[in-house]
Amino acid sequence: MGEPDPALLSINTATLRMRWDLREIIAGLARHGIRGISPWRDQVAKVGLAEVAARIRDAGLVVTGYCRGGMFPAAGREGRRAALDDSKRAVDEAQAVGARCLVLVVGGLPRDREGRIVSKDLTGAREMVRDGIGELLEYARAGGMPLAIEPLHPMYAADRACVNTLAHANDLCDELAPSGREGLGLAVDVYHVWWDPALEREIARAGERERLFAYHICDWLVPTTDLLNDRGMMGDGVIDLPRIRGLMERAGYRGMHEVEIFSAGNWWLRDPDEVLATCRARHRERS
Amino acid sequence: MGEPDPALLSINTATLRMRWDLREIIAGLARHGIRGISPWRDQVAKVGLAEVAARIRDAGLVVTGYCRGGMFPAAGREGRRAALDDSKRAVDEAQAVGARCLVLVVGGLPRDREGRIVSKDLTGAREMVRDGIGELLEYARAGGMPLAIEPLHPMYAADRACVNTLAHANDLCDELAPSGREGLGLAVDVYHVWWDPALEREIARAGERERLFAYHICDWLVPTTDLLNDRGMMGDGVIDLPRIRGLMERAGYRGMHEVEIFSAGNWWLRDPDEVLATCRARHRERS
Repeated sequence: MGEPDPALLSINTATLRMRWDLREIIAGLARHGIRGISPWRDQVAKVGLAEVAARIRDAGLVVTGYCRGGMFPAAGREGRRAALDDSKRAVDEAQAVGARCLVLVVGGLPRDREGRIVSKDLTGAREMVRDGIGELLEYARAGGMPLAIEPLHPMYAADRACVNTLAHANDLCDELAPSGREGLGLAVDVYHVWWDPALEREIARAGERERLFAYHICDWLVPTTDLLNDRGMMGDGVIDLPRIRGLMERAGYRGMHEVEIFSAGNWWLRDPDEVLATCRARHRERS
Repeated sequence: MGEPDPALLSINTATLRMRWDLREIIAGLARHGIRGISPWRDQVAKVGLAEVAARIRDAGLVVTGYCRGGMFPAAGREGRRAALDDSKRAVDEAQAVGARCLVLVVGGLPRDREGRIVSKDLTGAREMVRDGIGELLEYARAGGMPLAIEPLHPMYAADRACVNTLAHANDLCDELAPSGREGLGLAVDVYHVWWDPALEREIARAGERERLFAYHICDWLVPTTDLLNDRGMMGDGVIDLPRIRGLMERAGYRGMHEVEIFSAGNWWLRDPDEVLATCRARHRERS
């Protein structure tokens, strides 16, 4: 593998969320010559959707994804309806900022209104996810916004996403929209899928169906001290990033490489300018 | 699902490791009318193999597994040889205590002598695992000791086991010993596999090949605060234990149900008699 094109670097705004707001992040990206961004809804809401959209447009940034819709399973019909409505608003916002796709974190076991998990029926949760994506897809298609299912690591199956493998996500796409041109595809995040023995096969399968919508990078640290917020900078962990980039490229992916690092104990504490400089260097040298 | 037969309860000694040695554990199991045990090598070594074997025999305990062999990948030929030799000793010990199988935790990415991970080649690590099991199998067969590959949760892929799904473990068995009668099979631990969308299919596949050698239970807590030592007592988490027991039974499994709980912040701190009483009750009512 040769080095990746530095122009393909994108930054997921969760990476900088502790010390900069979205205005500062957009200005920072420009300063570091970074051309892609993937914003989170709560960060957008803080600054205001219209202002964020204008600043992104003025900065000429590519919006590699919008985070996020999903969380479909809920205990009652009303809860599922609320989740769907919220995802429709996420579609609208993604359109407003000109995102290439809306990322779907599909949700785990059904919860009640107070947020308590009320069922152990994982199969049923997966059916709610399929139905939810199906309904959202109609709305998103009408607005021309592609949906990207992001399989999450199996350690999040109960509380964040019960789609945990690329095979399962590919199966869902096959059922709901056989080609990516129909507006449903995948976000491949190395953190969630690097361990999968079917990685090569399933990336190739997704490529054949033109459903590789996004590629997220970071690293898996050994030891990992927190299930949520201990992701590593590219090169600091054990993921063979050039290999996975190669699998993506061979499958036809030509999009950007989005850095998404949740790191409560390290990167979130550092000067965001240092973080961005490190992202640039590690993207070029270690990804 | 009806309630499980209380006579099928077995205790993995890791569950009680902090406050009792193996002598106390064996006596405790007798006191609580528990008929199965699965000891760890370090706990055996502390008391002495001959004494442990005698005490287990005198107590009439079924040894549902012996923990553990494996850890096959290493940076050099010498390291791989040392791992294999160590696993052969584990086979001998498993025979000495009359275990039904030796549990294999196969190891993650290759390490050097100082224990540092020195490669990101997960595919290569998986080849070392296949070769290591193949070599160990000859030795184990000669001694009549079945080997049980335990797929570990994907969050342990780098540092503990790079076999992370039942499908992968079944594939390995197909390659090395198509039927369980040839001495190679699986240990199914709910903690590691509960999330897998292929669970039903792969348990059935293993059953058809007579390779369901062991069944381990505990629960997945939400939130989980530690990747290693925050397992839950049956009923305290989100795993649908009766469903998975049903899958095992339909696949022909008639063995015991081994409770294995690593819990630094809760169960390891409690009076082991309370832990055993709770295991008995939760096995009957919630598993």
